[in-house]
Amino acid sequence: MHRLKEILKSIKPLDLSLEPAVLAHLDQLTKPPKSLGRLEDLAARYCLITGSTKPTLGRKKIFTFAGDHGVVKEGVSAYPQEVTPQMVRNMLAGGAAINVLAKHAGAEVAVIDIGVIDPLHDAPGLIQHKVKAGTDNMAQGPAMSVEEAVEAIEIGIELSAAAAREGISMIGTGDMGIGNTTPSSALFAALLPCPVEDITGRGTGIDDAGLLKKIETIKKALAVNSSQLDDPLKTLAAVGGLEIAGICGLCLGAAAHRIPVVVDGFISSAGALAACRLCPSVRDYLFFSHRSEEAGHATFLRLFAVEPILDLKMRLGEGTGAALAMSLIEASVKIYNDMATFASAQVSGKE
Amino acid sequence: MHRLKEILKSIKPLDLSLEPAVLAHLDQLTKPPKSLGRLEDLAARYCLITGSTKPTLGRKKIFTFAGDHGVVKEGVSAYPQEVTPQMVRNMLAGGAAINVLAKHAGAEVAVIDIGVIDPLHDAPGLIQHKVKAGTDNMAQGPAMSVEEAVEAIEIGIELSAAAAREGISMIGTGDMGIGNTTPSSALFAALLPCPVEDITGRGTGIDDAGLLKKIETIKKALAVNSSQLDDPLKTLAAVGGLEIAGICGLCLGAAAHRIPVVVDGFISSAGALAACRLCPSVRDYLFFSHRSEEAGHATFLRLFAVEPILDLKMRLGEGTGAALAMSLIEASVKIYNDMATFASAQVSGKE
Repeated sequence: MHRLKEILKSIKPLDLSLEPAVLAHLDQLTKPPKSLGRLEDLAARYCLITGSTKPTLGRKKIFTFAGDHGVVKEGVSAYPQEVTPQMVRNMLAGGAAINVLAKHAGAEVAVIDIGVIDPLHDAPGLIQHKVKAGTDNMAQGPAMSVEEAVEAIEIGIELSAAAAREGISMIGTGDMGIGNTTPSSALFAALLPCPVEDITGRGTGIDDAGLLKKIETIKKALAVNSSQLDDPLKTLAAVGGLEIAGICGLCLGAAAHRIPVVVDGFISSAGALAACRLCPSVRDYLFFSHRSEEAGHATFLRLFAVEPILDLKMRLGEGTGAALAMSLIEASVKIYNDMATFASAQVSGKE
Repeated sequence: MHRLKEILKSIKPLDLSLEPAVLAHLDQLTKPPKSLGRLEDLAARYCLITGSTKPTLGRKKIFTFAGDHGVVKEGVSAYPQEVTPQMVRNMLAGGAAINVLAKHAGAEVAVIDIGVIDPLHDAPGLIQHKVKAGTDNMAQGPAMSVEEAVEAIEIGIELSAAAAREGISMIGTGDMGIGNTTPSSALFAALLPCPVEDITGRGTGIDDAGLLKKIETIKKALAVNSSQLDDPLKTLAAVGGLEIAGICGLCLGAAAHRIPVVVDGFISSAGALAACRLCPSVRDYLFFSHRSEEAGHATFLRLFAVEPILDLKMRLGEGTGAALAMSLIEASVKIYNDMATFASAQVSGKE
């Protein structure tokens, strides 16, 4: 808890004093002013986050946290729980979507066991930080204790701190955990707040009856844990997940170290929202990569007033949207750094 | 004209017989079915265009055609005409946005003088195919003769044919030409068709009075050339541009050689539309990269029933949107090729 409190205190809002110089530089580049649209916004934000009018690009790393969820006992997922460790091994072997897209974007992938039920022995490359073997069933009581949630958050914080020491210049979030749209929806409902129906979708692909059961399960979890919902940390413990808490911590740590964070889709947004509720200034450091096809994500984006970078109707998680968006953010910084100016290229300005 | 007729005859609609096998492969990959959304659509389309269930990726090349426009005499652009050759030189020196974004995407850039007024002597790297030194003022008569339009189209066709011989596996379109949103809007109005007001925007940034003058100029051009508007080729000659005709030819040639074409924004869409009007099957080979912020582009996309890949509020042209989208299409093909299957990774399927 000490480390978490320390980090929360160390996160500062962006220093906007650099903004005029950054925007002036963008307007000197050989293009009509603002004609690269959101690419210019991304570059400017990157400059402000890193506190530089001469931004540097370094290594990019996506942190994919894996955890299991006691609530799957309620029958809320289309896939069996054994898929969590199977997909972790698939990621370690390089066969998952996140591996392919991260490689395409030139990003590294770190896979962290923060709460998978399977012991995941003999899993070369896995970062072992198991807080517990899956959360408890939030429909029956808290998913985890506050201490366990703090431990998971602090794992994320430490991973960001280590990334800062390694010289990572952009961090992506990712998740793997069968059933994890259920705690994510519960967290959104409690933290935004919003009605459960507006934020609950079909996850990996449940049918109409499954969706109704999922909504009822989330309502039950919020009712059972109602005494915990007056505080974001207690809420995260009661109706969250270990990988969601890890993502929350990753966002907090990155913000403290002024590293831009590229938030993946639905589950990552839940972790990012928890981080913003613990410390509102975290928001300044986040890029929301894409609009997930998971039904509730549009609700989150609207209520949190976020315009994501991409809208490709993806709903896979793992960090796949973050990988694609990282490449666009990197492109925007290259525009800022590498384009000629009207003066240097001897190009005439507007008449 | 012979070459154009020959190419138009050689373009075939996509062979959809491969589609079931392509979609079945995508569903075997370790992700919930369709959960990569449009990325899966892009991969499938790439397979169908290239006619393979085992698609290959090779070099990517963006062709940026530069030309001038007699109609700028009417005062329709915010920038002086000298910017066209200045920007061509900037592109050849690597300082333009297209250079930065193409390099980021791993694509080559070819800059073609197809109709710049400036002789562009001593321009190393420039591909010299000047049909004429700028179009004539379309508000006074045809922008060019049908023979000149055919010559420009055939230049585009030959560039695609050469790309096919070189083993280029994806082609991007791009443009540079002060004033070229004006003929583009005229072409859209004539070929979609639609009212001039719905398809005319501020280009590089004209004010309200300039916008009104631009709309009036386009209406005048369509009236003066009304006898030519019963045929897409004559329309392109009368109210088009040399770089637009080059883009049209590039699309035709690429379709004939079954090379995927990534269409940039507003001006490139006008060239692509002309190609589709000359041969409707061309459409199958086109990826529309992004929704341009140029006001009329949304009208085109709606009337032509296209959902572009990106929406980043860009309005620069040059091929910048194509560069960004090419990288996403490439990512989609890597997903198709490089992900593990449920069987190979021993991951359980849906319950």
